[in-house]
Amino acid sequence: MNRICKLLNIQYPIIQGGMIWCSGWKLASAVSNAGGLGVIGAGSMYPDVLREHIRKTKQATEKPFGVNVPLLYPQTEEIMQIIIDEGVKIVITSAGNPKIWTKQLQEKGIKVIHVISNSKFAVKADEAGADAIVAEGFEAGGHNGREETTSLVLTPLVRSLTSKPVIVAGGIGTGRGILAAMVLGADAVQIGSRFVASEEASAHINFKNEIIKAEEGSTKLALKKLVPVRLLKNSFYSEVEKIENIGATREELAELLGKGRAKKGMFEGDIENGELEIGQVSALINEIKPVKSIIEDLILEYRTAKQQINHIRYDF
Amino acid sequence: MNRICKLLNIQYPIIQGGMIWCSGWKLASAVSNAGGLGVIGAGSMYPDVLREHIRKTKQATEKPFGVNVPLLYPQTEEIMQIIIDEGVKIVITSAGNPKIWTKQLQEKGIKVIHVISNSKFAVKADEAGADAIVAEGFEAGGHNGREETTSLVLTPLVRSLTSKPVIVAGGIGTGRGILAAMVLGADAVQIGSRFVASEEASAHINFKNEIIKAEEGSTKLALKKLVPVRLLKNSFYSEVEKIENIGATREELAELLGKGRAKKGMFEGDIENGELEIGQVSALINEIKPVKSIIEDLILEYRTAKQQINHIRYDF
Repeated sequence: MNRICKLLNIQYPIIQGGMIWCSGWKLASAVSNAGGLGVIGAGSMYPDVLREHIRKTKQATEKPFGVNVPLLYPQTEEIMQIIIDEGVKIVITSAGNPKIWTKQLQEKGIKVIHVISNSKFAVKADEAGADAIVAEGFEAGGHNGREETTSLVLTPLVRSLTSKPVIVAGGIGTGRGILAAMVLGADAVQIGSRFVASEEASAHINFKNEIIKAEEGSTKLALKKLVPVRLLKNSFYSEVEKIENIGATREELAELLGKGRAKKGMFEGDIENGELEIGQVSALINEIKPVKSIIEDLILEYRTAKQQINHIRYDF
Repeated sequence: MNRICKLLNIQYPIIQGGMIWCSGWKLASAVSNAGGLGVIGAGSMYPDVLREHIRKTKQATEKPFGVNVPLLYPQTEEIMQIIIDEGVKIVITSAGNPKIWTKQLQEKGIKVIHVISNSKFAVKADEAGADAIVAEGFEAGGHNGREETTSLVLTPLVRSLTSKPVIVAGGIGTGRGILAAMVLGADAVQIGSRFVASEEASAHINFKNEIIKAEEGSTKLALKKLVPVRLLKNSFYSEVEKIENIGATREELAELLGKGRAKKGMFEGDIENGELEIGQVSALINEIKPVKSIIEDLILEYRTAKQQINHIRYDF
């Protein structure tokens, strides 16, 4: 049995990325019910809101699900207590030191997966005792590593540095992408963008429509002096680009960003002035679909691609 | 039979990237003799030097080989005449409009392959009648596209836009990488960095040694306002980064770059002040080897990975 399927007790090694403003209980439960691992994105939730989403997810699915917790927020302690109290069995941590929470959560019977974007932190996550590692490449939406290593290069590197299960994120939104990741050494994939353009994502419909319109070159890594983040190009992005081109400082970028930009764009639907976080793979996404149908498509394409490996094209 | 092997009359669908200062007759003939397509990089050669390299390659191998011609140089007319006169059968054009040369060369019985880094130019290359298209992702060394699309995303996009054979470049230096590219829809791969760290490459030994020392994060895309280029980090790179951070203009970058930087670094071995162009995949390259052994390793790993697709990890 595939190691990630066994570890997380899921049918397909497809983890849904925990994304701010996009992945509440509806998306998480739909993904879990369809055989993947649904994940609630706690990054955009006050503690009480998170508790509500966990409870609703438990009502909507009997399958395992997880919560993604970016470790840079001030309320992490409270968030983790809720996760423990509510009996969540899988936590995905990111944007912080994996040492701080891994053991504490594992002692409560929780599986802990840590997200990294470079090989140095992959080793640290392994040493901290993470049950699995998400290796996130440059093409991923949202926050991103400073090394800009792409999934194609990061996957075999991380694979060579750890014996833990490796989950590849960034650039994957098709069944062929899943098979390519497995060939490079992954045990599973984490998929974000494809699930934002689902019926069940809590993203605003305006944002979903922008994703299906996105073409190659529609996203760009920006705000590198602050925290690198992959954005869909819009008026806000153009303003960022303009001041970055003339050498804007970290402080100037923080001022332009302000507060609440991501909510404004992704949740409230202000597609020009909001921050729209999405991956390069949006260029391959052309339809808003129900989660069940997305996962069926992924698995069908994966299996077809796997069979076609005996095609003459592969024979040399 | 694999379409690229058939088109170019080669054993393995492995094209050696035509790289300035690294790929002369020794490398090209070694790759062709080992079953791939050796390619002379004309970008760093005066016309007479190119003629000499073509003649020496013809003496050193009876197998097909190609010449890579960046179309932005002033002497392109003279270069193409030499290629025709010397009976070269395969030309790979890059950095320019594919329309200008494709038909003229094809009328002389030459196969023409065009290199692109975004899907818009893939369509243009197809329309210009190119025999095949090289799709080069963000992780590639040297000059690079402004869209920063990675091979993982660019490959299926280009595959969906053309029925021509697609050759993937950028991030590929292992047999698993070749198989992943094929899964994503490629007919073949173009490999650069792995061949620079070969015994036969004309790169300076100091540069080769830097490549095998390179780790993840050792390269970065720089000089974006001029022509984006992926460089190995050294003193020169640090100077570029410093002035780019404070908003250096195109003119200031051109002045810092000056003339002959690439030759100084890659050919003369000044690893601190020279321009060292190499791909992200250098992090996976740990040994300088003869070309024959590199290609044997690639094919062995490819075949092993292909067999392992029946492993339990892939079964869901």
